[in-house]
Amino acid sequence: MYIDNPATYTDYYELTMAQGYYLAGMHKKRASFDYFFRKIPFEGGYVVFAGLQELINTLQHLTFSQSETEYLRREKFSDEFISYLENFSFKGNIYSVREGEIIFPGEPILRVEGNLLETQLIETILLNILNFQSLIATKASRIKVAAGEQSVVLDFGLRRSQGLGGIHATRAAMIGGFDGTSNVYSARRFDIPAGGTMAHSWVQSFDDELTAFRTYAKYYPDDTVLLVDTYDTLQSGVPNAIRVAKELQEKGYSLKAIRLDSGDLAYFSRKARNMLDQAGFHDVKIAASNQLDERVITSLRTQDAPIDIFGVGTKLVTGHPSPALDGVYKLSSFGGEPKLKISENIEKITLPGKKKIFRYLNEDGTFYGDAILLQDEKVIERMHHPTFPAQKSDVRRRRHEEIMLPVIEKGNILTPELTIEAISAYRKERLDKLQREFKRLEFPHIYKVGISSSVMEIRDVLMKVHKT
Amino acid sequence: MYIDNPATYTDYYELTMAQGYYLAGMHKKRASFDYFFRKIPFEGGYVVFAGLQELINTLQHLTFSQSETEYLRREKFSDEFISYLENFSFKGNIYSVREGEIIFPGEPILRVEGNLLETQLIETILLNILNFQSLIATKASRIKVAAGEQSVVLDFGLRRSQGLGGIHATRAAMIGGFDGTSNVYSARRFDIPAGGTMAHSWVQSFDDELTAFRTYAKYYPDDTVLLVDTYDTLQSGVPNAIRVAKELQEKGYSLKAIRLDSGDLAYFSRKARNMLDQAGFHDVKIAASNQLDERVITSLRTQDAPIDIFGVGTKLVTGHPSPALDGVYKLSSFGGEPKLKISENIEKITLPGKKKIFRYLNEDGTFYGDAILLQDEKVIERMHHPTFPAQKSDVRRRRHEEIMLPVIEKGNILTPELTIEAISAYRKERLDKLQREFKRLEFPHIYKVGISSSVMEIRDVLMKVHKT
Repeated sequence: MYIDNPATYTDYYELTMAQGYYLAGMHKKRASFDYFFRKIPFEGGYVVFAGLQELINTLQHLTFSQSETEYLRREKFSDEFISYLENFSFKGNIYSVREGEIIFPGEPILRVEGNLLETQLIETILLNILNFQSLIATKASRIKVAAGEQSVVLDFGLRRSQGLGGIHATRAAMIGGFDGTSNVYSARRFDIPAGGTMAHSWVQSFDDELTAFRTYAKYYPDDTVLLVDTYDTLQSGVPNAIRVAKELQEKGYSLKAIRLDSGDLAYFSRKARNMLDQAGFHDVKIAASNQLDERVITSLRTQDAPIDIFGVGTKLVTGHPSPALDGVYKLSSFGGEPKLKISENIEKITLPGKKKIFRYLNEDGTFYGDAILLQDEKVIERMHHPTFPAQKSDVRRRRHEEIMLPVIEKGNILTPELTIEAISAYRKERLDKLQREFKRLEFPHIYKVGISSSVMEIRDVLMKVHKT
Repeated sequence: MYIDNPATYTDYYELTMAQGYYLAGMHKKRASFDYFFRKIPFEGGYVVFAGLQELINTLQHLTFSQSETEYLRREKFSDEFISYLENFSFKGNIYSVREGEIIFPGEPILRVEGNLLETQLIETILLNILNFQSLIATKASRIKVAAGEQSVVLDFGLRRSQGLGGIHATRAAMIGGFDGTSNVYSARRFDIPAGGTMAHSWVQSFDDELTAFRTYAKYYPDDTVLLVDTYDTLQSGVPNAIRVAKELQEKGYSLKAIRLDSGDLAYFSRKARNMLDQAGFHDVKIAASNQLDERVITSLRTQDAPIDIFGVGTKLVTGHPSPALDGVYKLSSFGGEPKLKISENIEKITLPGKKKIFRYLNEDGTFYGDAILLQDEKVIERMHHPTFPAQKSDVRRRRHEEIMLPVIEKGNILTPELTIEAISAYRKERLDKLQREFKRLEFPHIYKVGISSSVMEIRDVLMKVHKT
């Protein structure tokens, strides 16, 4: 489960509103909320959706234990309401795109339906789970794209992750395309391959670097990665690593890699590669770490730095420099009526009604653009730009996929739990269908997301009602 | 406790190194590690140290349960080493500055002593706890400084916090100077005041805004904050709030506040204040939220926006735009000998030996500057710039405080557990002694941190040893 007490991993106002609805006798009325985000982080062209399975599991366990109801009693919530919560469990429906899906701004990628109380109560934890994991899966995907499919990218971020956020940062990184992690806790919890070898302190704890390397190789002959920059990378680190590589070879083993953790990685990796190659160790890989992100890795790639393995920490797990996805959860219908929130900021005006998403395809199967339709629309002729309706696209001749599926119905889970590996494979399959212009790390092409004429009409009618 | 299985909330290499030390028979040798950071986040002038109590509590519970040793067995760790871990507990010493202390780059503010295995093994979780909480306490302090002592600043960040990082983000925000939170989970866990009233969905769930406001006021007459921007702030929101304020007044209650969550907060707060004042509601406060941080708040302050309460979310809890403190944990002595790590980057060269910190004071009791000395030094005449020794300061006539204290000795906790309130009060007391030039949000004055001649000599001798 996500957390031991999910019902109180929430904002206080979810509880005051829930009680208000209960006392006003409104809590059983039907409501529906949309989850969507407004801005792609990292100035990128897409987001990888992650966190869904954690959300599903958490909702199954969202109940109020005695310690929680005692807290509510101390906070002066009414006995009547607390009795209601004692029997609370989520009995609503959830429709969502699959975990690992490629998503875009403004799309209602997840919809929650149920009674007003339950749909409101889960807002904060839903946002907390989906916003963060989608953020990190997106960052991981960008880093993997920069490093290239043939490279190995490893999560080294736990020491700089935002407290216990490290748990799900690693989960999300794997969904986004990472190959492994140093994080033992998450590896155990999510069945992810973990690994790691030595820190500078290992080298410092021996009288000399060579003894430090030899000792490590003695105990881990089939999994030795030597950190070569404690004293002097080229004068001491790499030559000592080569000596140990020879000694391992004589015993029938191979040195796996050397790791560079400071200095100019392009320069040192090239020099080290030459030294290793000249000694005949073409198969000893070069790993690099130290403040890496997709931009540094791109720069290393364009310089042809011979790095095989990238260890990425801080900037991956914190989503630097965009440490939050701005996902929101907005009421879209209540008591069977579509609902709207108006704002001074045009892009903050919501889309009313229960909606679904069609993803239109190009001839070759790649993604053309997405349309937001009302749930009961079967087919549309064209889609409109959400805030500039004169701009529209004809979609009559295009194939489409309906990308939202029911995942919870009346509180029951409908979808099997997937492994992280399977979710990551789905992400890859989908990302392969996104044309490369949208995957560009900087100034990507903007993916088309439109709304149907019906969605537009309902919004415009409601705007008039509230503004007069 | 910080987490249910703290022993495996770690990087894998801590375990491979620990086993290596154990198998090589080195694990009982004495070692000492320093925790310090290199760069102040947010381009600020100081950092607020936070997380210490969580670290202390966690170390008390850092043991290997059966499920953890089973994992290690599957990962092919040796039976001998696993037996050792089954009886493991941290029996070392920790010296640290107090939680809430004002700290600066390069200072070894926390030192861990013990055997090599235990001091190495706790690295990752120590960094995870201290880096994040110090980051957020620092951000919170900056926001409180910008808002001013008389303002109320509230943490609204849970929905955008980095997953479970939200738990300690709130704890750290309170240490840094926040007055309350919306986060119910952390409020319960750390005994913090929590609060909150309504979202836009509350207003949308009623036929009209006035009914929504009235219903809320009916159930919470002594704690009503009305969100006024769902449809039209000045045409509808504020006038409806004033009607409800009158109705509450007739029943002997007072409307507590209105909240603005979009649009130009300077403009709307001024207009709303006028409307409230003209209706006689001088005591109804104005709360504002929406992408706030210390810079936006400073701007609102300079425009004399009449805002009493600031709700700060995303940018507080994620430490935007510097989402990590770069704290590190470096070996400083081993087997009784001082140890050094060299680097191509001068500022990454470590300070060897067991050290302490003297904080020198000005005549008026404010902080003058800090010196890093060897543990056995009693008095020094001058301190030197760490990387430019020709720059030095005479400190002979200055009073000083020794700011590091023993907090754990042979595994036993020496210090009483403080409330968050007490830690925050200490932070305030110390911050008051930092001259305002260092608290400036942009281009702050740089606080003096020097090293003693003895520290410098040991470093320089060891540099020569390793570089020849």
